[in-house]
Amino acid sequence: MKTLSLSFIGFGNVGRSVARVLLDKKQFFKERYGIEFKTVSITDSSATVWDEEIDLREALIVKENFGSLSKWTNDYEVFDLKPIDVVREVESDIVIDVTNDLNAHVWHLQALREGRSIVTSNKPPLAFHYRELMREANRRGLSYKFEATVMAGTPIITLLQEALKGDRIERIEGVFNGTTTFILSRMERGESFEEALRKAQELGIAERDPSGDINGVDAGYKATILHCVAFEPITFEDVILKGIGGITRREVMEARGRGNTIRLVAKIEKGNVIVEPREIPRNSPLAVAETQNAAVIKTDLLGELLLRGAGAGLKETASGVVSDIIRASKIKI
Amino acid sequence: MKTLSLSFIGFGNVGRSVARVLLDKKQFFKERYGIEFKTVSITDSSATVWDEEIDLREALIVKENFGSLSKWTNDYEVFDLKPIDVVREVESDIVIDVTNDLNAHVWHLQALREGRSIVTSNKPPLAFHYRELMREANRRGLSYKFEATVMAGTPIITLLQEALKGDRIERIEGVFNGTTTFILSRMERGESFEEALRKAQELGIAERDPSGDINGVDAGYKATILHCVAFEPITFEDVILKGIGGITRREVMEARGRGNTIRLVAKIEKGNVIVEPREIPRNSPLAVAETQNAAVIKTDLLGELLLRGAGAGLKETASGVVSDIIRASKIKI
Repeated sequence: MKTLSLSFIGFGNVGRSVARVLLDKKQFFKERYGIEFKTVSITDSSATVWDEEIDLREALIVKENFGSLSKWTNDYEVFDLKPIDVVREVESDIVIDVTNDLNAHVWHLQALREGRSIVTSNKPPLAFHYRELMREANRRGLSYKFEATVMAGTPIITLLQEALKGDRIERIEGVFNGTTTFILSRMERGESFEEALRKAQELGIAERDPSGDINGVDAGYKATILHCVAFEPITFEDVILKGIGGITRREVMEARGRGNTIRLVAKIEKGNVIVEPREIPRNSPLAVAETQNAAVIKTDLLGELLLRGAGAGLKETASGVVSDIIRASKIKI
Repeated sequence: MKTLSLSFIGFGNVGRSVARVLLDKKQFFKERYGIEFKTVSITDSSATVWDEEIDLREALIVKENFGSLSKWTNDYEVFDLKPIDVVREVESDIVIDVTNDLNAHVWHLQALREGRSIVTSNKPPLAFHYRELMREANRRGLSYKFEATVMAGTPIITLLQEALKGDRIERIEGVFNGTTTFILSRMERGESFEEALRKAQELGIAERDPSGDINGVDAGYKATILHCVAFEPITFEDVILKGIGGITRREVMEARGRGNTIRLVAKIEKGNVIVEPREIPRNSPLAVAETQNAAVIKTDLLGELLLRGAGAGLKETASGVVSDIIRASKIKI
C-alpha cells in the first residue's frame, strides 16, 4: 500500500466534490491501485487547515455549515497561509488546484520546485504558461495533470497524450462551453439573448459575471490548452476569439429554418486557433445539447474521431481531477 | 536515439499497411519520440525472411509483385520458420502479430517468455487467453498491446486503460462490426439479406466466408476483450451471441417505419456480455453508418461518454498497431 499526501488549494464546489469522491471510493482505490490518500492541508479563501491527517468528512461538514474553514478552530489549527506559503511549507506529494486563481502559475511553479506534483482544473495557468509549467515538471520528473480543464472529466487530454501515437493530428473542432450552448438553445425556442442569459444565471449554469463564457474566453482557454497538447505550446494571446454576444434571435431562427443550429465552435489547427459562433447542421456531431461537449479529432491515419461527453458538472469534473490524482501517483497498475 | 527491432508475423494487407506507415513516418518518429525501428524478420504463410536489417520498402515490392516472401531469394536468405520458431530464434524487441491465427496465443506466450513484447491486431488470443497472456507480460515487465483488435485504431483500449481512473464503469454499449452495419443499411434500402451480403462481398467488405461477421463472432471477440479491459478477464465462451442471419427485410423495414434502425449491438456489463441485433432510434449515438464503430461508456461519475470512429480500414488499423508499437517501446515522452 502506497500513501500519498494531498494539499487542497480551493475548497469550493469542485474541491468538495473531489473530496467526496476520495472519501466514497477509499476502498476502491485501495483494492484497484493499492493506494491511499491522506489530506494534509486544505486552503480556502479564508484560511488554511494544516495537520498530519485531516478528516475530510469533517472538513466537508465545517465548510458546508459555516461557509469557511477559518471557523474550524475546535479540531484543527487554522493558519493564515496563502497558496504560495502552502506549497512551500506543507509537505505534500500532490497539490490539487481547484481554484480560479488567474495567477496560480506562480505557486504551481513553486510547488514543482519543492518536488510536488500538480493536479489542476484551473485553466489560466495552462493557457498562459504551458511551456514553462511543463518544462519545470518534466525536468523534475513530476506530474502536471489537467484533464478537468477541458470537457470536465471527459478524457480528451489523456486521449491526446496517451493514444494516437502514430498519427499526425490535423485538426480538432469542438464545442467546449456549455453556457453558450444553453443560451443558443433557448434562443432557438424564441427567447432573446438577454432572457436566455438570465435563465442561465437563475439555474446556476452561467455565473453572475457571465462575460468569460459569452465572449468566448472560457472556450478560448480550452482551445489554447488543446493546441498545446496536440501541437505545440502557444498562449491564449494567439487565439482568435469571437463570442456569442452579437448573435440575434433572428440569426438563430434563420439558421434553424435552414435545418441548422448555431454553436460556439473552436477550431484548432497547428498555429491557428479560432473560437467563433458557427452555423452547423443539426445532425453534426458538434450539435450538442445542454452541458455536453464534443470534439472531432481529425488525423492522417484514423480520419475523424468523435469524443462526446460531459463538459461540466461537479461529479463530472471531479472524475477528471481524481483520475489525474491517481495518474499522478505513478503507481504501476 | 533508441533503436527497436521488430518481427512481423503476417504480411497481408494490415501488415503491409503497418510497414508503410513505419517507412513513411520514420523521420516523424525520430523527431517526436527519439526512436527508430528496424525490421529483423518478416513471416508470411510461405516463409520467413530474417536478416540484421530488412529493407521494408523492398519487402513490400516483393510481396506485392510475387505474392509471397518465399520468392525473395536474391537479396535475403529465406527460412522455413513458423511463428513459434521465429519468436524463439529471432532476436527482436517487439513481435507484431497481424495474422488471424486462432492459436497465436501459443507463440505469444513463447515470445513473452523470450523477453519480447507483443503488439497484435489478432483477436482470438485475447478472447480466449487474456488472463494468461497479461499475467505473463506483467510478470516480465513486458508490453502486450492490442488497440487494433477493437474499433481499429480508434483508441478505446488506451482510453479504458489510461483514463477514467477514478470512475467505476457500469456498462459499455457499442457497434463493433462494420459488415453487419453495411448489410443492415442495404436492407433498409430494400435489398434482401442475400443481396446485401453479396454486395458486401463484391466490395471486399465481407470476407468470402462471412460467417464470423454475420453470426456475431467478430463482435463477440471484441466484446470479450472490452470486458477483460473494463472489468475482469472472461473468455469468449461467456458471451451470449445472436447474429443477424435471421433478420428479414420486413423486420428492417418495419423498424425503419418506426423511425428506428437495426444494428448489431454489444452490451458489456460486469459478468454479462450480450451481442445481438437491436432496434435503436435513428438519432442514437449507436446508429452508425458504413464502417464506423461507436461505443457509449457509462460510468458512475462521468455519466455517458461516446467514442465514435473508424472500425475498419487498412490505414485505420495500422494507426492502432503503430501507436501500440510506440507505446510498447516504453520511451519517456
